[in-house]
Amino acid sequence: MSKTQQIALVGTGNVAFHLTRFFLDKGLNLTTVYGRNQQALEEFHALYNIEISTDFSRIPKDTLVLVCVADSAIHEVINQLPTQLKIAYTSGSTSLNALPSERTLGVFYPLQTFSKGLALQPEDIPFFIEANNPTFEKELMKLAQSISSNVNKATSEDRYHLHLAAVMSNNFVNHLFHLSENYLIQHNLSFKHLQPLIYETIRKIKTESPEKMQTGPAKRGDTLIIHKHLASLDGLERELYALFTRSIQQLNTTNEDEL
Amino acid sequence: MSKTQQIALVGTGNVAFHLTRFFLDKGLNLTTVYGRNQQALEEFHALYNIEISTDFSRIPKDTLVLVCVADSAIHEVINQLPTQLKIAYTSGSTSLNALPSERTLGVFYPLQTFSKGLALQPEDIPFFIEANNPTFEKELMKLAQSISSNVNKATSEDRYHLHLAAVMSNNFVNHLFHLSENYLIQHNLSFKHLQPLIYETIRKIKTESPEKMQTGPAKRGDTLIIHKHLASLDGLERELYALFTRSIQQLNTTNEDEL
Repeated sequence: MSKTQQIALVGTGNVAFHLTRFFLDKGLNLTTVYGRNQQALEEFHALYNIEISTDFSRIPKDTLVLVCVADSAIHEVINQLPTQLKIAYTSGSTSLNALPSERTLGVFYPLQTFSKGLALQPEDIPFFIEANNPTFEKELMKLAQSISSNVNKATSEDRYHLHLAAVMSNNFVNHLFHLSENYLIQHNLSFKHLQPLIYETIRKIKTESPEKMQTGPAKRGDTLIIHKHLASLDGLERELYALFTRSIQQLNTTNEDEL
Repeated sequence: MSKTQQIALVGTGNVAFHLTRFFLDKGLNLTTVYGRNQQALEEFHALYNIEISTDFSRIPKDTLVLVCVADSAIHEVINQLPTQLKIAYTSGSTSLNALPSERTLGVFYPLQTFSKGLALQPEDIPFFIEANNPTFEKELMKLAQSISSNVNKATSEDRYHLHLAAVMSNNFVNHLFHLSENYLIQHNLSFKHLQPLIYETIRKIKTESPEKMQTGPAKRGDTLIIHKHLASLDGLERELYALFTRSIQQLNTTNEDEL
């Protein structure tokens, strides 16, 4: 990846927010952030002192454009961009062959959860790259390698499956933390008591399979506790507790670990 | 906690396994591990060079006995122990007033997930203490403080609620990792790609509320992706995906974060 290659971003969400910082930190030639939301663009200008624009037609040809918008907007945004641009998008679940094949198109997918205001080191983020043109694929690989040491080629199918697993391992996991926090607050207890447990949950699966590390009443078949817990919950929390219990018992049969 | 106070453990599961190591490491006077499973007892003897016995009637009076057995066995085990012992159990969900009140009884509850063979530092483990006698409660507080710097008094109700929240934040979270791993293996992809994401999921909630950190298709209301994902799953995985989506949408309405 030549440091003189002009790069532009389209989008003002969290992915654009973090990629902008990664590129600027690594001294890459990111020139302009494009978007439709003037207020969000001004935040980028204020934070990064970078050029901003709402006029997609002004993007100079031969610019490498990273489209960081929601899946539902990718196709429409690409259609609005001038031809002769090299375009990559950052989504997990949109297939490359669902987009106009006459364009030079690729994928630049960081498998990570991004929140504004929470700084992140890019070096460990796994990037998954794909393109409809081998030269562009190499260029995207090099761009990713200039910010991360964990860069992989992946088909659209691979990327889709990784995104689905990420939804389970991040979105759903975070939601369980949210439900736990709400439950404890209702009972005047602090969520911070769970932090060492949560940290240990993650530490275990760095070296061991989650299958081996499963513990708890569902795993032990402790019906007494399961019924008590179900009686303390209602609504969707209760449905989730019951469904997890069934799912854990379906997958686990023999281990002896304990919570 | 006097270092000369004799301590005995009853139980040969993972809690007993880890408490034995914590007590011995701190130079406490743990004399004997009691249990009914001779083979498991012999593992304790081999690993820790500690006395083992299947004969509960031999426990000397004035011994502090920690009963580390499943909730369903606590009552029965206590009935088999000689009177004049000080007894504490390590369970989250058994209420102190459900047990014989004429005994000197207490609770010594470590809020952590324990697996054999995976060493753990005790200093950060939150302990929750309760007793039916103020002197014994102080003694249990001191015992916990001799291995951990995070020791709290808690009622049986508090402990019950903490255990339920721990089931959600550990057991169910680990099961989601298990399902994610299975899903990726089915598609010839490695679970290790998710490790940086999982680590970041945890890092975020050290400083921010899980509510603020929720991201993903359910949160964004990205119906297109949700339907694709549902179509790729079946059985209980599909039911879990649908239920999480409803639950996330019920609790979250306004944030803009992205996965």
